[in-house]
Amino acid sequence: MSHRTYAGPVAPRTTDRLTQRPLPASAVRLDPAGHLGRWQALNAAATLPHSIEQLETSGVLPNLRRVVGESDAEYVGYMFADSDLYKTLEAIGWEIGRTGTTAFDAFLADSLALLTRVQDTDGYLNSYIQGTRPDDRFADLRWAHELYCYGHLIQAAVALHRGAGRDDFLALARRSADLLVRRFGPDGEAGYCGHPEVETALVELYRETGHEPYLATARRMVDERGQDLALLGPDRLGAHYFQDQAPVRESHEATGHAVRQLYLNAGVTDVWTEQGDDTLLAAMDAQWDSAHHQKMYVTGAMGSRHFDESFGDAYELPPDRAYAETCAAIADVHWSYRMLLAEGGSRYADAVERALLNAVAASVSADGRAFFYSNPLHLREGHREEENAPSRRTPWYSCACCPPNIARLVASLHAYVATADATSLRVHLFAAGEVDVPAHLGSGTLRISTAYPADGRVVVDVDGELAGALALRLPGWAQDVTASVDGAAPVAVGSMTVEDGYLVLPAGTRRVELDLPMPAVAVSAHPRVDAVRGSVALTRGPVVYCVEQADHLGGPSVEDVRLVPGAPVEVVAADGALPRLVAAGVAAATTGDALYRVGTGPADGEPVRLTAIPYAEWGNRTTGAMRVWIPLA
Amino acid sequence: MSHRTYAGPVAPRTTDRLTQRPLPASAVRLDPAGHLGRWQALNAAATLPHSIEQLETSGVLPNLRRVVGESDAEYVGYMFADSDLYKTLEAIGWEIGRTGTTAFDAFLADSLALLTRVQDTDGYLNSYIQGTRPDDRFADLRWAHELYCYGHLIQAAVALHRGAGRDDFLALARRSADLLVRRFGPDGEAGYCGHPEVETALVELYRETGHEPYLATARRMVDERGQDLALLGPDRLGAHYFQDQAPVRESHEATGHAVRQLYLNAGVTDVWTEQGDDTLLAAMDAQWDSAHHQKMYVTGAMGSRHFDESFGDAYELPPDRAYAETCAAIADVHWSYRMLLAEGGSRYADAVERALLNAVAASVSADGRAFFYSNPLHLREGHREEENAPSRRTPWYSCACCPPNIARLVASLHAYVATADATSLRVHLFAAGEVDVPAHLGSGTLRISTAYPADGRVVVDVDGELAGALALRLPGWAQDVTASVDGAAPVAVGSMTVEDGYLVLPAGTRRVELDLPMPAVAVSAHPRVDAVRGSVALTRGPVVYCVEQADHLGGPSVEDVRLVPGAPVEVVAADGALPRLVAAGVAAATTGDALYRVGTGPADGEPVRLTAIPYAEWGNRTTGAMRVWIPLA
Repeated sequence: MSHRTYAGPVAPRTTDRLTQRPLPASAVRLDPAGHLGRWQALNAAATLPHSIEQLETSGVLPNLRRVVGESDAEYVGYMFADSDLYKTLEAIGWEIGRTGTTAFDAFLADSLALLTRVQDTDGYLNSYIQGTRPDDRFADLRWAHELYCYGHLIQAAVALHRGAGRDDFLALARRSADLLVRRFGPDGEAGYCGHPEVETALVELYRETGHEPYLATARRMVDERGQDLALLGPDRLGAHYFQDQAPVRESHEATGHAVRQLYLNAGVTDVWTEQGDDTLLAAMDAQWDSAHHQKMYVTGAMGSRHFDESFGDAYELPPDRAYAETCAAIADVHWSYRMLLAEGGSRYADAVERALLNAVAASVSADGRAFFYSNPLHLREGHREEENAPSRRTPWYSCACCPPNIARLVASLHAYVATADATSLRVHLFAAGEVDVPAHLGSGTLRISTAYPADGRVVVDVDGELAGALALRLPGWAQDVTASVDGAAPVAVGSMTVEDGYLVLPAGTRRVELDLPMPAVAVSAHPRVDAVRGSVALTRGPVVYCVEQADHLGGPSVEDVRLVPGAPVEVVAADGALPRLVAAGVAAATTGDALYRVGTGPADGEPVRLTAIPYAEWGNRTTGAMRVWIPLA
Repeated sequence: MSHRTYAGPVAPRTTDRLTQRPLPASAVRLDPAGHLGRWQALNAAATLPHSIEQLETSGVLPNLRRVVGESDAEYVGYMFADSDLYKTLEAIGWEIGRTGTTAFDAFLADSLALLTRVQDTDGYLNSYIQGTRPDDRFADLRWAHELYCYGHLIQAAVALHRGAGRDDFLALARRSADLLVRRFGPDGEAGYCGHPEVETALVELYRETGHEPYLATARRMVDERGQDLALLGPDRLGAHYFQDQAPVRESHEATGHAVRQLYLNAGVTDVWTEQGDDTLLAAMDAQWDSAHHQKMYVTGAMGSRHFDESFGDAYELPPDRAYAETCAAIADVHWSYRMLLAEGGSRYADAVERALLNAVAASVSADGRAFFYSNPLHLREGHREEENAPSRRTPWYSCACCPPNIARLVASLHAYVATADATSLRVHLFAAGEVDVPAHLGSGTLRISTAYPADGRVVVDVDGELAGALALRLPGWAQDVTASVDGAAPVAVGSMTVEDGYLVLPAGTRRVELDLPMPAVAVSAHPRVDAVRGSVALTRGPVVYCVEQADHLGGPSVEDVRLVPGAPVEVVAADGALPRLVAAGVAAATTGDALYRVGTGPADGEPVRLTAIPYAEWGNRTTGAMRVWIPLA
C-alpha cells in the first residue's frame, strides 16, 4: 500500500464555484474483499497486464517503432491506436498511486523511451500521421484524431505525475501540449478535434502545472466548436456526429456520437469549473437532462445506434440493437462526477453508480481478460455474431478503445467514492474501505463496512475526529431507508436531515448503520420508450438483472418467457456474490409462423420459474438468448 | 394506346416447371382512373420525366460524357451511378410498350449515342472505372458494382427490345454481356458481383435472345457464390453482407444487405426456372419463409438496420429505425412474383400486394417527384433529420437507386396483374382495367371494374369466350368473402372451389361479382417482435394505416396516443381516395421526466379521436410525428 498523497483524475485548481471538492485519491482505500475493491484487484491482476500484452500483439507498439525505423511492420489498426497505449499508461499511473507497485516500471521505461524517440522536436507525436501520412499534420482535424490522442497522452502523463510522481512523462506530454497551444491556442489558428477529449486533458494539465495557456487553449476549443470543424465542410455523418452543428452553449440535446458528446461535456464542465461562465453550465444542465432523462438505458449505457455510434432520438432505446458502447458509459461516469462536483445532488452519483455497476461492469468478463465493446440489453436467439454485436466478450478489438479505458477507470475508482465541501464529508459510492477525513473536517478515517451491492447494510465508523458533518448518499432507488446513529435504534431517514439526496449527520457522529432495503423491484420505462413497452426490468438496489438462457436450458426460450405481474420475486443469496432473483413466469403460448395476425397477442402458456442474474454477469457461460426487459404476462 | 404484343419484365423461356406463366404485358391494360392505373399515369407524367432531368443535374450523364472528353466535370456520386440511367431507360422501354409514347425518343437517341461512344471495343462500359480508375477493370468485384451496372444495362435493353422493339440498345448491351461471358462464363474465371443483379438480367437476356451462354454465366455466378467473393478475403461488413457466407443452396436465412439478398433470390429463381435443380428452389422456399415470416415489416418493407442496410435477426423489426429501403420492397415484388410463377399460391401475390400498396407506394410523393429511400414506420417527435431517415420525401438522393427503380416498376405494373396456366386465367392484383384472354384459354377480354383498394367490390366481366377457368385471388387478409356468378345470388366462397388461395370459376363464366369485405382491422405482430409489443396496426383490406400529427394538430402528440381496444373503427369514405379511419383513443397520462420508475406504465388520460390515413400517404403535409403501430390503452 502506497502512502503518498496524490490527486485523482479530477483535481480542480479553482474550487470556489464547486459544490463538492474531490478528496485526494490517496484518501480512499477500497477493501479488496469488497465489490469495488475486488474489481480493482482484478483490474490490476488481469485487465491491466492483459492490455499491456495486447499493445504489442495488436500493433500499437510496432506502429510507434516503425516511425523510427525499429519495425518493418505495416501500420495496423485505426488512426487513433496510440491512444490505447496512453490509456494503459494512465491506468498504470493510478495503479502505482494506489498500490505503489513496481511491476510496470520496465514497461514504463520502455514506453517513455519509445515515445521520446518518436516525438518530433516540435512536440509532434502521432504514429499514424508520422508513419503513414507525414505531410498531413493537422490536415484533417475532423477524422485524424490527433488532438484526441494528445488528450490521452496528457491524461496519462498527469496520472503518472500524480500517482507515480514521475516528471518524465509530464515533460514529454507538455512538449506536445505546447505545440497545441502554439497551433490552436489563443494566438493560433482556430481548430478543434473531431473527437473531443483534449479539452478535459488540457484543463487537467493546467491543473497539474498551473500553466494557463493550456486552460486558454481548451477554452478556445470549446468556444470555437460548432463552426463546422473549422469550415471543413459537410461530412457524410452530419455535423451533429461531431457535436459541431451548433455552438456548445446552444446545444441542449445530447446528440451525435455518444462518446464524443460525453467527453466533450466533461471538458466543458472542466472549463466552467476553472473559468466560470454560467452559460456553459446551463448548457451542461440541459445536456445532462437530455442524456439521462431521455437517452439512457436502464443499465446506464448510452448510444442507441450502430449506424454512427450515436445517441438516437429521445426515447429511442432499442434493447436488442443497443450500441451502448463501454466507452460511453465510462465517459458518463467521468462527466456525471464532474457535474456532481459542480452542483452536488445525489442524482449525479446515482448516474455514476448505475453506469458503473451495470454497463461498465458488464463490459468485463469474470476473468478480467475479455470485453464487450457494445453492451446490448437483449441478445436474440439465433443472433448473427458481429464484432460490435457479440454474444461473448472478446480479448481485444480492431477498435480497442474500450479495454484500456476500463483499466484506467477501474484503477482510479476509489477517487469517485467520496468528496467534501466546507462543512461535510460526503460518501457517494458505498464500498467497503477507508476514507481519510480531510484536515479541514477533522482527522482520522471513516471505516466503511458493507457487502453492497449484495446487501444494503452500510456501516460507517469514524476512527478519529470528524468535526464536520457526515453525508451519506440516499440512492434514488432506495425506499424505507433507516439509519441507526451511534448505536441508537434505527430511525426512518425521512425524519432526519436530508440535503440534496444525502443523509446529513452532525459533527461528532461516531457510527452510522444505514439500512437500504433491497427488495427485488420491477422497473418500467417511460411510455415513449416504445421498444420495451409492456415489459419490466428486474432490479435490486442499483443492480439491473437479466434472464439468460444458461439458467433455462431445457426450458422455454427466454425469448418467449413472460413475468407474472405482481408475483413475488425471491432473492436467492449466494455466498460472496450478488444474489439471483427467482420469479414466477409463463412461457408464451405458441402462435404459429404468422408474423402478423388479426387481434392482439397470444395467450399465456405453461408456468415457468424465471431466474435472473445481474446484467453485469451475463455472457460468462454458454451463449444463448439474454434479455433485461421481460414482457409481462 | 399501343397494340403491339410485348412481353413484360419476366418472360420465361422454359415454362414446364412453372405453375403459372406470365401473360404478355400487352395483354393487360390498367384503367387510368383506377388505383394502380392512376399511379402508372403519374409515373409517366411526373416520376419518369423527373428522373430524366435528375440524370443530368445529379451528374450521371456528365459522368459518362467525361469518359469521352465531352465534360470537364469531376466524377460525381457513387460508383454505380450509371445504373440510375439504365433503370430510367428500362422504365422508358415499358412505358413505350404501354402507351406507344414518342416523348422519350430524343432522350433515347442521345443516351444510345453517348453509351455507344463510351463503350469500349471489347464491350466494357462503366463510367466510374473508365473515368476514374481505368486500370481497375473487374479488380474489385466486391465493391465496384460493375456487374451490377451491366445487369441494369441489360434489363434496360431487354425492356426497350420488348416494349419499344428496339434492337440497338440490345446490341449494345450484348457487347457488354458477351464480355461477361468471356470473362466469367463457363470458360472464364470465377467471379461474381458484390451486389447481385446481373444474374436475373443475364437470364432475361438469354430469354430474349436464346443465347445459352448468358444463362450458363448466370448459373455459374449462382453456383460460385459463397466462396468469399473469389477469395478477396474478409470485409469489414462480413461475408453475409454480400450473401457470400455460404453457397446459395445452403443459405436458408434472409441475411445481409436486403436489396442484395432479394435481387440475388430473383436471379436464383430465374436460374431454377430455366434449368431446374430443385436444391435451388428449396433454398428459395426457405429464404422466402425467412424473409416473409420473420423479417418483413407490416408494410411489406424489408431491411431493419441502418448500419449495413441489412436484414436483422429474426423478429428484429424496429418501426422507428426501420431502414426499409424502397429498393428492397421493389426487389421483393420482383422475387415474390417469380416465386408465384414457380409455385403458385396466393401468399406470393399477397406479398406483392402488401409491398406495392404500402412500402413502395409510400416511397413516392403525391406529385410523383419526391421520394423516400428508407421507409420508417414511426417518426419520432423531435426527430433529427438525416438523408436516409427523413421526415419528408426528397427530389433525389446522393445514392439515387430508388427513384428510377420506382419508375421501372410502376411502368411495368400491369405485367404483375394476371397469369395463366394450362387450364385457367388467374387474376392476382385487383385493378380496374382489361386483361386479354390468352389464346389457349379462349378469346376476348376480361373487364375488371373496381375501386379497389378503396373498396372491396371487384366485378369481372368476360367480353368474349373464356374456355378455361377464371381464378381470382382470395387475399390472405380477406374474410367472409362472397361471390355472385352470372347474376346469381352471392354465395360464400367457402362453398365454392378454392385452389391455392384462388376462387376458381368454371369455363364459360360471364360475370363475377366478388365482394371482399373491408372492415378496419387491428393487426398485431408475432410476440417476438418486441419493438411493437402491446401495439396494433390499423389496416383495411391490403392497406396499412398510420396516425400522423397533421391530423391531430392542437391535440396530444401522436407519440402519446393509445387506441382503445375493441372500440369500433369508423371508415370515413373520401371521394376518389382511400378512406380514413377514425377510432376512439386516449392520450397517455403524463408521467413526468423519469425515464425509469418502479411499477408498470402510466394510467390513461383524456379521450381523443384518432384519425388514421393510409401509410402510403404519410408525409405529404406538415411534418410531425407519425406511427403505424399504436399502443393499446
